[in-house]
Amino acid sequence: MDLDFISKLVKHADTKIIMLVMDGIGGLPRVTDNKTELETAYKPNLDNLANNGICGLHLPVGPGITPGSGPGHLGIFGFNAEKYQIGRGVLEALGIDFDLKPGDIAARGNFCTIDKNGNITDRRAGRISTEKNQEICKFLSERINIPRLKVFVETVKEHRFLVVLRGEGLKGNLIDTDPQEIGAKPLEPKGGPGSENTVEIVKKFLNQTRDILSDNHPANMVLLRGFSEKPTWPSFPKVFGLRSAAIACYPMYRGLARLIGMDLLETGQTIEDEFKTLEENWDKYDFFFLHIKKTDSYGEDGDFDSKVKVIEQVDKLIPRLMNLNPDVVIVTGDHSTPSILKSHSWHPVPLLIWSKYCRPDNVKIFGERACVSGGLGPMLPAVEILPIAMANALRLEKFGA
Amino acid sequence: MDLDFISKLVKHADTKIIMLVMDGIGGLPRVTDNKTELETAYKPNLDNLANNGICGLHLPVGPGITPGSGPGHLGIFGFNAEKYQIGRGVLEALGIDFDLKPGDIAARGNFCTIDKNGNITDRRAGRISTEKNQEICKFLSERINIPRLKVFVETVKEHRFLVVLRGEGLKGNLIDTDPQEIGAKPLEPKGGPGSENTVEIVKKFLNQTRDILSDNHPANMVLLRGFSEKPTWPSFPKVFGLRSAAIACYPMYRGLARLIGMDLLETGQTIEDEFKTLEENWDKYDFFFLHIKKTDSYGEDGDFDSKVKVIEQVDKLIPRLMNLNPDVVIVTGDHSTPSILKSHSWHPVPLLIWSKYCRPDNVKIFGERACVSGGLGPMLPAVEILPIAMANALRLEKFGA
Repeated sequence: MDLDFISKLVKHADTKIIMLVMDGIGGLPRVTDNKTELETAYKPNLDNLANNGICGLHLPVGPGITPGSGPGHLGIFGFNAEKYQIGRGVLEALGIDFDLKPGDIAARGNFCTIDKNGNITDRRAGRISTEKNQEICKFLSERINIPRLKVFVETVKEHRFLVVLRGEGLKGNLIDTDPQEIGAKPLEPKGGPGSENTVEIVKKFLNQTRDILSDNHPANMVLLRGFSEKPTWPSFPKVFGLRSAAIACYPMYRGLARLIGMDLLETGQTIEDEFKTLEENWDKYDFFFLHIKKTDSYGEDGDFDSKVKVIEQVDKLIPRLMNLNPDVVIVTGDHSTPSILKSHSWHPVPLLIWSKYCRPDNVKIFGERACVSGGLGPMLPAVEILPIAMANALRLEKFGA
Repeated sequence: MDLDFISKLVKHADTKIIMLVMDGIGGLPRVTDNKTELETAYKPNLDNLANNGICGLHLPVGPGITPGSGPGHLGIFGFNAEKYQIGRGVLEALGIDFDLKPGDIAARGNFCTIDKNGNITDRRAGRISTEKNQEICKFLSERINIPRLKVFVETVKEHRFLVVLRGEGLKGNLIDTDPQEIGAKPLEPKGGPGSENTVEIVKKFLNQTRDILSDNHPANMVLLRGFSEKPTWPSFPKVFGLRSAAIACYPMYRGLARLIGMDLLETGQTIEDEFKTLEENWDKYDFFFLHIKKTDSYGEDGDFDSKVKVIEQVDKLIPRLMNLNPDVVIVTGDHSTPSILKSHSWHPVPLLIWSKYCRPDNVKIFGERACVSGGLGPMLPAVEILPIAMANALRLEKFGA
């Protein structure tokens, strides 16, 4: 089922959908009591939604596939992650909230060290500090000068930065200049069909950079990777006919939402701030993507108990969400991040959909094992979540007569 | 999700996967106590794996489709059986352990009887004995003489034999010479684009055969079917990055495993022999395909009790398998062979995956009904088994950042 198919069935209704994404919500049982984070948390409100809603587990990308944050979110937004792939440069831009414009080319950069013959001696320039990185980016930005082109050099972290080229007729189909080995020279820029102009521009950028940084040991050169154009994908609000807003603290998720056309709402750093933003903007949108980051962060840290606490914190705020009288509430994650693995994982992600019109199943609590026997099945492709939610919001026409 | 997609995510890990295939394991309840073969068997070790692992049922080819042994195994090896189809000639070669080389053309042959006008009077030459078949194959092999071509004529069983043509530039796109009716003449060889040379060769083969066998009533002519080239498919060990070995007594399964690049391990005729072979080769491989034939054979015979006993026999050997300390254990079949049907069937096949990192579900025993409510679902496409096993073996990279 692709976006075109769904899009043709979309009709208007005065209904509202909330998609509450607890990043990395899925877990694995810990040894002590054989329960996952979600199974451990005291969460009467989420359990109540599960009891009155329909449950299951979804696969963001596919069976066995551990999704990055990009593909994980695209999946639950209805975008097939195999088809809609994000280049590394663009992803880096999203991650620092850089506002890419159509036609922009983004690449991920590493500061590196070269010797007097131009050979790489350290691909990460001794992992310089982020502060040092900021100085160099500023220094470079002020000096790079390429006619008819705007060049952005932006700090990411430590030795990593972002380059964005803005101009006419640029192409993103260039290979990496990083040879991935010590002792070699940075590779000359090369590209595919139609990239001649862009290749020349990148050569100029690299030559100027080499000159500008020549006295800047250890960060005296750069390596570029993952050249990519800002993708021109379908707009989420247009495909689904939903005025759509994203409430997220972290730049990556704001960037992803913006990439598919959602409005970004200003919010604070706490979960309560995010719920407040939801309340304040309730009348203005039909769809809210509400992103909770800390479930994933604590999962990555291996901090089981803190992940449990975040779930409990969210649970306490559910009544405020329900007081808004939403028509459809989706609660899920973009992937699993089991604390015992300290990383994203391939495990299916707990999912509940609550609405006045969903057909409840026998699932009484919101947990991994309980969701296996839910009406949405144990391995729902994530791209099917939005169509189901749209149906529950009475926003899809009948197909055929 | 195709092999290319998975292949790009494969990474190395020092982990080992065992795929224990009990051929035709799925069954149907018998009337007396309404239990299937698997549900009847006393199998505490398999139940224990199910209890600590994740369960479900898989579909080797698709819903309602009864798989042959070829498609059934290809499915669980991750190869889409609709895309990777094996010609009948090649399948016949696999079935007698004939070592096909790239470029070889294989066809299935029947000895038949023709009258003095060349019309077929018996398409199976009175079902001659296998011993007689062997004599004729030897006789033919010694006399067929086609320049620049090696011709193999190999006994299969009764009136059935295998022809393999080995030479330069041969094509497998020839139609059958068997008219499928009595009273007609064998059809003249014909083929598709580029087959002219092969057609001429097959004509020579058939003319020489007619002469050589002219006094050999009732087997005085042959009919050829299912011309096919040895397929050039992706290599299982390369796709999944697994040093892979097959332990199987029966030629068909050895042939299938060899076709996708697995090493064949010499083993004995008993199940215990096969487990011994597993132990002896444990250090040399990352993936073991361990094939148990008798579950299927007894299913085909309609021998419910003997099928149960084979399952119990395998169960007793599970501790030896677990003592090897594998990282992932898959237990399943290539299709169902319910004793009450005495044949392969379309029913989904019980499946369990055990690993340290699988997320256990509520299934406590390994049986058809129990597996329906497992975390792998009641109808998992078989091609998804390997990606899930690879993930559990920590052998897949994250997809996207």
